[in-house]
Amino acid sequence: MQLGKVIGSVVSTRKNERLESMRLLIVEEVDVDLSGKGRFVVATDGVEAGPGEIVLFCQGSSARQSDLTDKTPVDALIMAIVDSFDLKGEIRYEKYGYQGDEPGSRAGEEVRDRIIEDDG
Amino acid sequence: MQLGKVIGSVVSTRKNERLESMRLLIVEEVDVDLSGKGRFVVATDGVEAGPGEIVLFCQGSSARQSDLTDKTPVDALIMAIVDSFDLKGEIRYEKYGYQGDEPGSRAGEEVRDRIIEDDG
Amino acid sequence: MQLGKVIGSVVSTRKNERLESMRLLIVEEVDVDLSGKGRFVVATDGVEAGPGEIVLFCQGSSARQSDLTDKTPVDALIMAIVDSFDLKGEIRYEKYGYQGDEPGSRAGEEVRDRIIEDDG
Amino acid sequence: MQLGKVIGSVVSTRKNERLESMRLLIVEEVDVDLSGKGRFVVATDGVEAGPGEIVLFCQGSSARQSDLTDKTPVDALIMAIVDSFDLKGEIRYEKYGYQGDEPGSRAGEEVRDRIIEDDG
Amino acid sequence: MQLGKVIGSVVSTRKNERLESMRLLIVEEVDVDLSGKGRFVVATDGVEAGPGEIVLFCQGSSARQSDLTDKTPVDALIMAIVDSFDLKGEIRYEKYGYQGDEPGSRAGEEVRDRIIEDDG
Repeated sequence: MQLGKVIGSVVSTRKNERLESMRLLIVEEVDVDLSGKGRFVVATDGVEAGPGEIVLFCQGSSARQSDLTDKTPVDALIMAIVDSFDLKGEIRYEKYGYQGDEPGSRAGEEVRDRIIEDDG
Repeated sequence: MQLGKVIGSVVSTRKNERLESMRLLIVEEVDVDLSGKGRFVVATDGVEAGPGEIVLFCQGSSARQSDLTDKTPVDALIMAIVDSFDLKGEIRYEKYGYQGDEPGSRAGEEVRDRIIEDDG
Repeated sequence: MQLGKVIGSVVSTRKNERLESMRLLIVEEVDVDLSGKGRFVVATDGVEAGPGEIVLFCQGSSARQSDLTDKTPVDALIMAIVDSFDLKGEIRYEKYGYQGDEPGSRAGEEVRDRIIEDDG
Repeated sequence: MQLGKVIGSVVSTRKNERLESMRLLIVEEVDVDLSGKGRFVVATDGVEAGPGEIVLFCQGSSARQSDLTDKTPVDALIMAIVDSFDLKGEIRYEKYGYQGDEPGSRAGEEVRDRIIEDDG
Repeated sequence: MQLGKVIGSVVSTRKNERLESMRLLIVEEVDVDLSGKGRFVVATDGVEAGPGEIVLFCQGSSARQSDLTDKTPVDALIMAIVDSFDLKGEIRYEKYGYQGDEPGSRAGEEVRDRIIEDDG
């Protein structure tokens, strides 16, 4: 899987009939410091990801291993929204307020990321 | 999936028998500003795409997940024609007249794209 | 699929038993101006391609979607010989004499390509 | 398969339901001198790999060929922990104390690698 | 498939149980002049390849199309040892003594390659 950031979405009316009702999102691959790699993929959204969210996406036949995408011609699927990740034991990214007990943590609201600087 | 632009087509008479009656189109990968990436793929056309149209194509085994391409040796399929896409909430591309109520919107006619400049 | 040019062949006696009687050709990927990309693939020949011919090859699991390659450990298949292709409506490559009514058009004879220069 | 080094982990609560209870590790691809390639993959952990360990991971549909990952949308799997490897007959990497008779060899403890310099 | 040269091997005791008894070899991709490309893959050995041998390997799901690798999490398989190959009709590589009637041709002995220079 790769880390990515949702930066846009695609609208299509003339498409393969198996794609009906799928959301197609533009995802930029990001590095472990969350900088954009300048590479983009259009992925089917399997987790109701919102703009700006840091996600995991998989590619190839693995993108069809969900109820939504089974037997469909899609080769990229957002299969997880990233809450946080660490590098060498240090938290390096934390989605703002993803713990349920903080205000502003509901899905659909604006996403504010917290990127932790490396002191090393 | 990747964004691409249909720029040509390939004719072949001596080919695998499972490819009979397939249209083979040359697609250039494009970036989110619709500039060409200089990378080309020959893809089976699953949506009657025309020259100049901005499309989505998938690759690998996913390209065989359509009635047309099932069990055939093709590894790239145009599975959607792009009407529009946005980046960070701003419409950045809109296919001319893709709404059905405008003149010149029928499939097969010349495609005139409208690329929206970024003000940011 | 990718455009390629057959430039050589590989001989192997000690190999997986499912590969018996397959021809293994060295194919250089070519760009839409037919210049070599400097990338090579060894592909199973599914269409009796000859040296110098411009072909289409597919990769990955799609390469096994033919009677010849079913359930074999091959990941690249030549599945079509290119007669001609166009870019933006202009014929840019035409295989010499591929129409049946010209002398020298039989498979197996020397292939002489005609690359049409771009006037644009 | 590629050689990689486990450098971090990802936490996600909103994800495809088939991913429940999977550990998702950040793996940096390494070269045969164990230097990082600057390319990262998020892989499912199939062998209880720990931070700092040199591992083998596979990608694509092969990542689903384990009891843990069968029919799940994952495209990268850590399927082996590397004890040692050689280049041209010379041992070039040896995991510290991977033989069972040395102290400090248990899984879960700190991993100390021994990289053997090339005299050639 | 790609041309590669066997340059090393990997030892692993803690690994997916389906990998028991597989040999894992380090293969460097080589160009058609047999120079190394600086890219390495760890591949399952399906043909008892020895160090220094020029081989063909396949990747992806095709690597599982052998009795040895069926349903295992491997994504690269050495499926042939190269005896010779030609470019444009000229033999460019010949494995020393691969014809059975020469001394020193048995598998397992030192491999001495003969690379034929290009006179063109």
